Amino acid sequence: MSVVERSQHEERALRRAIELAGRGPSRGINPRVGCVILDADGDVIAEGWHRGAGTAHAEVDALSKLSEGAARGATAVVTLEPCNHEGRTGPCAQALIAAGVSRVVFAVPDPGQHSSGGAETLREAGVDVEGGLLLSDAETALGDWLPAARLGRPLVTVKWAQTLDGRAAAADGSSQWITGPAARADVHVRRAAADAIAVGSGTLLADDPSLTARTPGGELLESQPVPVVFGSRAIPADAAVHRGPHEPLHVDGHDLDAALRELHSRGIRSLFVEGGPTLASAFLAADLADELVVYIAPTLLGGPRVAIGDLGIGTLADAHRLTFDSPETLGDDILIVARRGTR
Amino acid sequence: MSVVERSQHEERALRRAIELAGRGPSRGINPRVGCVILDADGDVIAEGWHRGAGTAHAEVDALSKLSEGAARGATAVVTLEPCNHEGRTGPCAQALIAAGVSRVVFAVPDPGQHSSGGAETLREAGVDVEGGLLLSDAETALGDWLPAARLGRPLVTVKWAQTLDGRAAAADGSSQWITGPAARADVHVRRAAADAIAVGSGTLLADDPSLTARTPGGELLESQPVPVVFGSRAIPADAAVHRGPHEPLHVDGHDLDAALRELHSRGIRSLFVEGGPTLASAFLAADLADELVVYIAPTLLGGPRVAIGDLGIGTLADAHRLTFDSPETLGDDILIVARRGTR
Ligand SMILES: NC(=O)c1ccc[n+]([C@@H]2O[C@H](COP(=O)([O-])OP(=O)(O)OC[C@H]3O[C@@H](n4cnc5c(N)ncnc54)[C@H](OP(=O)(O)O)[C@@H]3O)[C@@H](O)[C@H]2O)c1
Ligand SMILES: NC(=O)c1ccc[n+]([C@@H]2O[C@H](COP(=O)([O-])OP(=O)(O)OC[C@H]3O[C@@H](n4cnc5c(N)ncnc54)[C@H](OP(=O)(O)O)[C@@H]3O)[C@@H](O)[C@H]2O)c1
Repeated sequence: MSVVERSQHEERALRRAIELAGRGPSRGINPRVGCVILDADGDVIAEGWHRGAGTAHAEVDALSKLSEGAARGATAVVTLEPCNHEGRTGPCAQALIAAGVSRVVFAVPDPGQHSSGGAETLREAGVDVEGGLLLSDAETALGDWLPAARLGRPLVTVKWAQTLDGRAAAADGSSQWITGPAARADVHVRRAAADAIAVGSGTLLADDPSLTARTPGGELLESQPVPVVFGSRAIPADAAVHRGPHEPLHVDGHDLDAALRELHSRGIRSLFVEGGPTLASAFLAADLADELVVYIAPTLLGGPRVAIGDLGIGTLADAHRLTFDSPETLGDDILIVARRGTR
Repeated sequence: MSVVERSQHEERALRRAIELAGRGPSRGINPRVGCVILDADGDVIAEGWHRGAGTAHAEVDALSKLSEGAARGATAVVTLEPCNHEGRTGPCAQALIAAGVSRVVFAVPDPGQHSSGGAETLREAGVDVEGGLLLSDAETALGDWLPAARLGRPLVTVKWAQTLDGRAAAADGSSQWITGPAARADVHVRRAAADAIAVGSGTLLADDPSLTARTPGGELLESQPVPVVFGSRAIPADAAVHRGPHEPLHVDGHDLDAALRELHSRGIRSLFVEGGPTLASAFLAADLADELVVYIAPTLLGGPRVAIGDLGIGTLADAHRLTFDSPETLGDDILIVARRGTR
């Protein structure tokens, strides 16, 4: 087989592996990974994918379909660098070496601090290793898992609703509703897309929100985020948040960094921070918001109840810099989505 | 001549009168008005238009082109209801009656409190009067003059620049520049389109602005607004605002209603309020802003320096309601234009 033929077989196998990866669950601690094993002629002899934490990794799943010795001299094509760590299922790098695989092709390098180094281990064992193929397709298929793994925390979206002049409530505290039905429906769709949704204990105690993702008619959307309550005050036993599909997580204390690492270790890749102003401002002040989702209502309120409070910024040169997506009109309101950093 | 033929002649004459009106000046106390005089056969025998305060009104200008007695039995077609008041040039209604005109057709009823009633005066003198033809075209041709005349004050635009979280400056007062060059160029184009531009004495004393409309290169745009400074503190003799093409007007005291009536009586139809926050908030609190032009920068500042301060609103139901135009992207910034009231 020529080098060109070989790389054609491997690219086709990698595309198939990306497809297989998509069969795995899109949430949870582990990434979706697919694996295809090719014999010396470049023919597919086994396929595997990861079905979620506690089950076999994609490589081990694929190897398990082969009889003893069948993988000797074979090529394993994987969407993510084989892991190196002693997890619940043992390191894949070792499994591939033990099976006698002679070449490993993968797309995305493992970003994990504990799990990376698989390529190195394989090379040391004499396996021919090539990484970085179809990188962008494979990264896309990994979704939020990859940037969250790189950051060691969930991707954080901070959402708020404000008047044109940046108020979240009137002087007397009245705030329902600043924005109209189209904006509120959009919030629920974004809730459903997040792994978890956070509020401060202030909002929990003031509004008793259910923190579910619902249709405008009030029915639960198919996908539901885990509710997370930030704050040292206890969640009342009769709080509405207990009646949703997931038991709420309670983050006691104000160390947002530590809290995010903890949430990440529980498999939460994306966190949708709904407020109130104190919690949202704390996330912004700590520069922990990757994305901002701001609904702007066609009203003016003035007064003391600003949507975002103090951020500890003294002078204009220290302003937090963002990049805007194109603004959208949602009913009577405007939605501005911003991302951290300049273009 | 049949009724249909007559109305065709008159409509054609009114379109011509709207065209003639456009030859007059677009600024100043008086509206642009055009007049066409038709004989009994519907043929044009004279045309006139108003050239600005102190000169003949359109009807009188047209009549002046006719020899004595030539207007007897004629039809005067005018873009605006002939005036009824004893101004610098005498009421047009009387001039038309004196000339023996037997029919008057006009588009827009005179909104003025002192000048209206011309149609009534004409009818009482036995003249056949018809109003409201081609209303929308003729209203458009009158520009800001008409809504300003209806309100008895200039149309007010309040402009400000803010961060996404509604701040106009950092805690230390630094605010140059919140927005980027494209937004700042847009401000200058809007300045040039206004008759006058207002700042509070706070901004005048802090920034010493020249309050001219300039190109990004610093050259004066063709049309320049009159600078108006609001506040009891005096304008320093060496202030930059004295070096522009118009001497600044100084509004002493804080009665915005009275100030606007005074500016209107000087022929100012549109006022562009540039701030600072105190003056802008005062206009908003008094519900005197017809239009808001808000530039939103992709930054966060937090802290005390809100773009809009207190508006005296206690509860959400009393929020000032606006209607948004579609938002625009200007460089890295977003422009939101809003108008008073709901759709
Ligand atoms: N306009 C909007 O988009 C919007 C959205 C949500 C809520 N709201 C309104 O906001 C109001 C509540 O706002 P809020 O600001 O009082 O409450 P909040 O932000 O929901 O909660 C504040 C609490 O969060 C806890 N917390 C946890 N980590 C923190 C940290 N790192 N820094 C600071 N606090 C931390 C503290 O509680 P402990 O003392 O318990 O530790 C703090 O008192 C309600 O009236 C609600 O209706 C508006
Ligand atoms: N981000 C922006 O878009 C923007 C725009 C402009 C300025 N700025 C910044 O804003 C700062 C100045 O702001 P500022 O709020 O102190 O000053 P300001 O709004 O320019 O001026 C306030 C003054 O206006 C006078 N005034 C007149 N009529 C009034 C009324 N009806 N109600 C209240 N005041 C009235 C009062 O002066 P008297 O005491 O003399 O009567 C008052 O002190 C400067 O640092 C400037 O750079 C920012």
